[in-house]
Amino acid sequence: MKVNGVPCRTIWPDPNDPAVINIIDQRQLPHAFVVEGLRSVEEFATAIREMHVRGAGLIGATAAFGIYSALLAATPATAEHCLDQGADLLVATRPTARNLAWAVNRQRAALAHGKTLAEQQQIALATACAIADEDAAFCQRIGEHGLPLIAAISRRKQGAPVNILTHCNAGWLAFVDYGSATAPIYAAHQRGIPLHVWVDETRPWLQGAKLTAWELGQEGVPHTLIADNTGGHLMQHGLVDLVIVGTDRVTRTGDVANKIGTYLKALAARDNQLPFYVALPSSTFDWGISDGLAEIPIEERGGDEVRLVRGRTCDGRDETVCIAPVGTAAVNYGFDVTPARLVTGLITERGITPPLAAAIAALFPEYY
Amino acid sequence: MKVNGVPCRTIWPDPNDPAVINIIDQRQLPHAFVVEGLRSVEEFATAIREMHVRGAGLIGATAAFGIYSALLAATPATAEHCLDQGADLLVATRPTARNLAWAVNRQRAALAHGKTLAEQQQIALATACAIADEDAAFCQRIGEHGLPLIAAISRRKQGAPVNILTHCNAGWLAFVDYGSATAPIYAAHQRGIPLHVWVDETRPWLQGAKLTAWELGQEGVPHTLIADNTGGHLMQHGLVDLVIVGTDRVTRTGDVANKIGTYLKALAARDNQLPFYVALPSSTFDWGISDGLAEIPIEERGGDEVRLVRGRTCDGRDETVCIAPVGTAAVNYGFDVTPARLVTGLITERGITPPLAAAIAALFPEYY
Repeated sequence: MKVNGVPCRTIWPDPNDPAVINIIDQRQLPHAFVVEGLRSVEEFATAIREMHVRGAGLIGATAAFGIYSALLAATPATAEHCLDQGADLLVATRPTARNLAWAVNRQRAALAHGKTLAEQQQIALATACAIADEDAAFCQRIGEHGLPLIAAISRRKQGAPVNILTHCNAGWLAFVDYGSATAPIYAAHQRGIPLHVWVDETRPWLQGAKLTAWELGQEGVPHTLIADNTGGHLMQHGLVDLVIVGTDRVTRTGDVANKIGTYLKALAARDNQLPFYVALPSSTFDWGISDGLAEIPIEERGGDEVRLVRGRTCDGRDETVCIAPVGTAAVNYGFDVTPARLVTGLITERGITPPLAAAIAALFPEYY
Repeated sequence: MKVNGVPCRTIWPDPNDPAVINIIDQRQLPHAFVVEGLRSVEEFATAIREMHVRGAGLIGATAAFGIYSALLAATPATAEHCLDQGADLLVATRPTARNLAWAVNRQRAALAHGKTLAEQQQIALATACAIADEDAAFCQRIGEHGLPLIAAISRRKQGAPVNILTHCNAGWLAFVDYGSATAPIYAAHQRGIPLHVWVDETRPWLQGAKLTAWELGQEGVPHTLIADNTGGHLMQHGLVDLVIVGTDRVTRTGDVANKIGTYLKALAARDNQLPFYVALPSSTFDWGISDGLAEIPIEERGGDEVRLVRGRTCDGRDETVCIAPVGTAAVNYGFDVTPARLVTGLITERGITPPLAAAIAALFPEYY
């Protein structure tokens, strides 16, 4: 998608230095657009753990490039050790994110075909690029599959703007391009369907306020920022037509882990008979588990992300302010699980499916 | 309740100047405890509108003292005009808050017995003090009526801490003393029942992070700050035993207007079979209305409360930071309505009642 009118992805090999992979340092958005070059697997791990990059697809792609970086630093004698250590380091950065393990496993399978270190380095780069390209392509297809949902509401509303609520950032910044939840939104917007997005600010990290509002603004998609508390009220008053969110891990039965607070919006959608869709590329499925509440590990992050808020003052200084009494205890669960029973459908690169094992299996028979 | 160990109320006549009513400027909490003297009805209106004071009971008490202030500035010739104008000014400050109109109406009824301006001034001060005392007494009784709920859970858990989730600040800072939602918590804590409070930070204004965390800390009540998105996850994992919130207006049928986001927590409590109680003095009932969603006006405040966050830097400077792209549109509904069907019970100064007209009428027959 576009940054100041110029197409951009969230991760790309540096054209001038084969040892460098560029990312957007998303901690600086929306106030500054900063490109960061990653040069070692440790830098990749830090970038994921400390959220220079975040989001299901982008975490996966970053980990894939991280494996390449780990092998670049290896000698033939240390290659296996560097690969194992790098893989462990990368997978441990974010416990809930399924795409991490998926990308590392895919790299491992591909690397099994490499005989020399040089071959393995080449394979790792090619696989990471393929994962990134595929992520973008799958998101684009998610957009095409989700588009008819928005178009149908638009027809029903006789062209009045379709109001879509989203939580967190499942936009192109969370993937390599297009995004998952935003892909149908961008597809509809590009086709001239009038729509408007309610952007949950998404405390504590404020991905909605800082990232979703920014990327929708860059694409010219009408949107309004709201506190996370607001969605239920909007739904009660007919101001939401459709909810679309992303996800970090989905069970084979359709339970959905996504940014903390998603479950509350799903409950409100159900209480107001509104469609609640989850958009994901198949790389986010965890085919081996069936009970999201019991089996998906929920990342717990530091309490300072709750106590402290970072932003820019009106005279242009970056400041971090404390919003609670000094010494207040805070907990910070990063995700919650929305049971499949609250999900209307999963929008995947192969089409839309109800969140039921049998239906998902019909789309993805190779995993069942 | 206590501030640095010394008992304090949220509003009191200045002992040295009969023309001054003191309040705590709650915008400065938790980082500074600042007492502000109000000297004119315009200052009272500003203090309510701009949230130097807030909360159902305190807004009512402040409006009652505001009427006194309006009459202090009057001459016998202008008394009626000053009273009408002051009443209109005060009632218009916060549209959702029922206690505003209640307090002003009570002042008007009392003032009808005053023959001279001097008598009216005396009546207005006495009535305002009576409203404040009654607010404190009613909250204390709410505590006694709510206490058995917590005690029963404590017995069931064999003395393990009772986990109570609350939203916004319905603490003593929202009333004259004790609070509504916090009154049973303080009563249980004072009797040595082990408990722990999950404090929703309550975006956008952060009443939970700034006020509830502060007042619980001052009283030594164990508590943990959470983002508003977190409550559903905690409930799914057995980490909440009971939800108690306050309210700004309740219909005769038990629909509850409270801080935006309350409805989402009520949905989560219902989905997890957890008790969801609303604590209120009877001054918060709006006896004339039956349909909360249709009839309770929802205050809409400025978008800057969403876009901007005020706090203190680690080196002690107060700063306001912007968390969204410059120019982002934001809406800021202050309240939502939780339908009676999601409420387990209303804790009032006369006891606990199910949120049903017939049951409320049994406790408050004079209004039905």
